[in-house]
Amino acid sequence: MRTLQLLVVAGSLMVAGSAWAQQATKADPAMLAKIKDEGLNRSRVMETAFYLTDVCGPRLANSAGLARANEWTRKQLTDWGLTNAAVEPWGTFGRGWEVEKSYVAMTAPYYHALIGTPKAWTPGTNGALKKRVVVVKAATAAELDKYQGQLRDKIVLLDMLNPPKTSFEPDARRYSEEELSKMAQYRPEASVGQPADAEERMATRRTLLALRTKLADMVVSEGAVAVLSSRGGSDGTFFTSNGAPYATDAKPVLPELEMAPEDQLRLIRLAEAGIAVELEVEVSTRFQSQDLKGYNVVAEIQGSDRKLKKEVVMLGGHLDSWHAATGATDNAAGCAVMMEAVRILKATGVQPRRTIRIALWGEEEQGLFGSRGYVKNHFADPATMQLLPDHEKLTAYFNLDNGAGKIRGIYAQGNEAVMPVFEEWLQPFTDMGATTVTLRTTGGTDHLSFDAVGLPGFQFIQDPLDYGTRTHHTNMDTYERLPADDLKQAAVVVASFVYQAAMRDQKLPRKPLPAAKPEQRL
Amino acid sequence: MRTLQLLVVAGSLMVAGSAWAQQATKADPAMLAKIKDEGLNRSRVMETAFYLTDVCGPRLANSAGLARANEWTRKQLTDWGLTNAAVEPWGTFGRGWEVEKSYVAMTAPYYHALIGTPKAWTPGTNGALKKRVVVVKAATAAELDKYQGQLRDKIVLLDMLNPPKTSFEPDARRYSEEELSKMAQYRPEASVGQPADAEERMATRRTLLALRTKLADMVVSEGAVAVLSSRGGSDGTFFTSNGAPYATDAKPVLPELEMAPEDQLRLIRLAEAGIAVELEVEVSTRFQSQDLKGYNVVAEIQGSDRKLKKEVVMLGGHLDSWHAATGATDNAAGCAVMMEAVRILKATGVQPRRTIRIALWGEEEQGLFGSRGYVKNHFADPATMQLLPDHEKLTAYFNLDNGAGKIRGIYAQGNEAVMPVFEEWLQPFTDMGATTVTLRTTGGTDHLSFDAVGLPGFQFIQDPLDYGTRTHHTNMDTYERLPADDLKQAAVVVASFVYQAAMRDQKLPRKPLPAAKPEQRL
Repeated sequence: MRTLQLLVVAGSLMVAGSAWAQQATKADPAMLAKIKDEGLNRSRVMETAFYLTDVCGPRLANSAGLARANEWTRKQLTDWGLTNAAVEPWGTFGRGWEVEKSYVAMTAPYYHALIGTPKAWTPGTNGALKKRVVVVKAATAAELDKYQGQLRDKIVLLDMLNPPKTSFEPDARRYSEEELSKMAQYRPEASVGQPADAEERMATRRTLLALRTKLADMVVSEGAVAVLSSRGGSDGTFFTSNGAPYATDAKPVLPELEMAPEDQLRLIRLAEAGIAVELEVEVSTRFQSQDLKGYNVVAEIQGSDRKLKKEVVMLGGHLDSWHAATGATDNAAGCAVMMEAVRILKATGVQPRRTIRIALWGEEEQGLFGSRGYVKNHFADPATMQLLPDHEKLTAYFNLDNGAGKIRGIYAQGNEAVMPVFEEWLQPFTDMGATTVTLRTTGGTDHLSFDAVGLPGFQFIQDPLDYGTRTHHTNMDTYERLPADDLKQAAVVVASFVYQAAMRDQKLPRKPLPAAKPEQRL
Repeated sequence: MRTLQLLVVAGSLMVAGSAWAQQATKADPAMLAKIKDEGLNRSRVMETAFYLTDVCGPRLANSAGLARANEWTRKQLTDWGLTNAAVEPWGTFGRGWEVEKSYVAMTAPYYHALIGTPKAWTPGTNGALKKRVVVVKAATAAELDKYQGQLRDKIVLLDMLNPPKTSFEPDARRYSEEELSKMAQYRPEASVGQPADAEERMATRRTLLALRTKLADMVVSEGAVAVLSSRGGSDGTFFTSNGAPYATDAKPVLPELEMAPEDQLRLIRLAEAGIAVELEVEVSTRFQSQDLKGYNVVAEIQGSDRKLKKEVVMLGGHLDSWHAATGATDNAAGCAVMMEAVRILKATGVQPRRTIRIALWGEEEQGLFGSRGYVKNHFADPATMQLLPDHEKLTAYFNLDNGAGKIRGIYAQGNEAVMPVFEEWLQPFTDMGATTVTLRTTGGTDHLSFDAVGLPGFQFIQDPLDYGTRTHHTNMDTYERLPADDLKQAAVVVASFVYQAAMRDQKLPRKPLPAAKPEQRL
């Protein structure tokens, strides 16, 4: 309820809030103006985003592109005057992989080049192959039996469950005031208990897993030569994922490509109408097992307060991406904003009381591995909850990884005590659309690694734009999808949050420590 | 004003209108019910669309795909019981062309397969070539001079003028009642005179033409090896066109591909940042000059009235398409609907007084050539306006070629006398969204060929859907963009219009004959 009241009377609270802030945090009120001026008038966030996306390229876990990005960001942060910049290993990940050639075309009943990309960690075709297709449609593992003896020397087309339709909804949208107000009012009591269909959904998942496992074995044992699939998308946009484990001892799989739905569906319709469909596929992929480690990039702005400089405020986002595009909104955007935030702070000549540390995580897409490894190495292992000395020195970790939309507020991640602090810190940004603190927890990204060991880890609320519809894990997650004004706003808000956290007398309030979770072993 | 009143009181007019219709046209009122029943409950329009798109494939002017479609439609119309089905040459078109292989990828600074397609009638690369790129940006022909000596052995990247942006508007939409009402109220007086910027636009066009002509010469004379360009689109969707004339004596051009904007822009950004960009391009295209003729497909339902059966009602759409997709909305949709309309009529056991003739045009995309040739061969040459005997026998030509949207009404094409007839014919379809007769003329497709010699040629008003944003002349004009319900509705409306025109005592009223236009020689 307090949250809502604060929002409603935001105008009058701004003055009171600022006065209070000065006392409590000793933050220089002129700094906010400097941050806005630097971030809005001399922004370099789009240049940073260009280097992360176009220049470094796709940044799949343990790929050459991610290594380029690690090196470039380390150097760039150093050039901006940050200290202790390093590419720091977090542990063992698995094999590196990249595409060396990808070509797929229909050669009968007529020629048509197709849009697709190899699934990550799948092998190549050993030169070009020209083969007939067979469509495999099955809802359960048992239904696969009818294809026994049918797959030899064939390219398997997997059925597509959600064909694209004419779209009467815009790709991109922003949160409405009503949606934000609902988030602000959220209290966990309202949504306790299991969803009614939880058991049904689990059963569906088990069926699907059994189907997939059997299918993966069957295409190999039956002698098929490649697999083409499509998980969704439209208009030439398609979703990508990994098609095989990155572990060095992973079971062999077939070459597999994810396809634009329009192409996949055309092939399926033709084959099902009894028309002989022949494809030419030439894929070459390269594995590397020399360096199996994963890495994060870290760099610091040193604290200046004798007592507090051992304490740290962290900010970050994951630098790795999927491989079919340049991971612009997932998550070059977040990294560019976080880098811009520390660049802005350096440009203002900031003298933070606490040390500010940026971290750009590796291998997030495979399971938050970079941040989980970092947290385990520096703060605590959630499996044991034996705390390392630095655990008490971290005041907060701020994450950005919900696309390229501007910041509309922040998830307090169930930490009720932190809400008034964040509400105060947002006051200067109400006119820029950042207004909302929600008690809600949000998942799916690297703040969870901190939250898992009782450290205050937060993700900002961002306008969704076309993240869910068009860019997230697709082949069209490119530089074009980054609206400069959104990224500039986000960088200014983050810089201010980080600055406030670095200046505040007290560390941010924490939730109670969680119990050890032995199953969370990395 | 009359149109508007009719619309407003549509409910009460329906009864009066139907009674009048019976008297005047001797149309069987039970036929409408039969048409709706057959078209809505036993539709085959999607099956027809599947054959035209997926099975026949891209249907570029004088291509193997168009020849397949000609043959399939001729046979299908015959199988449905139509008579005199024929693939009828309309005159000389030019060379046939098709893609045999199309592969383009960035190989430095890192590997990435790119989305693109050869421009129509461009040559191949004679095997794979791997070359560096150079970006050419020029607003005038004179600005090209700075690239002299820079293009040898390079792949030329042409600048892209309209980069995609995050889209907050839906791809597809339907006409609102307000828009339709505006169309119904349209009177030509409201829009006389040249637009204010006509001269400026002409000047811009001249500048652009000079630029393009010089550029085409320069890339050849300076020794570039290929050209990559992008005219628009987004998300993997791009627009296609022809890159060279189809005439047998056309000047030589370079291999040229049209690219997905995201790929083209990435290459341009990298090259402009001073990063060495290398591409691999392998394009093989095949020309054929053995048969330079163009063709239309025609078929008939014979008239049964002793006096009127020599008269003809025509309906049609163009069967040819661009080559980067399967031309689903442009214009397999129109052809499938027109074919379905005659199938429905046959299925009802229709005994039309006049003969009904369907025509599926070739080579529309290059200048309405199929319909213009047909009109010249059968009715009149607009260059001389010497009328052939059949000129007086055609009561109307109905065309469909504005995408896959359902029919919302019809353009009276400046023929005021025909409006009350069409208003009456639309009455049974107001509950299906077809309500509007507009005096407006509309262009861009084959009814113009009839209109040019004073024959009543009409195009229906269709919901725009995603025709302008996503499908028209793009690589994503595929079967997925065809909403079955829209096509079914359209087929029923067209079948009814054609039936009414075939049964009416009088031919439809005509506009005065136009003057001969010697410059319109085909």
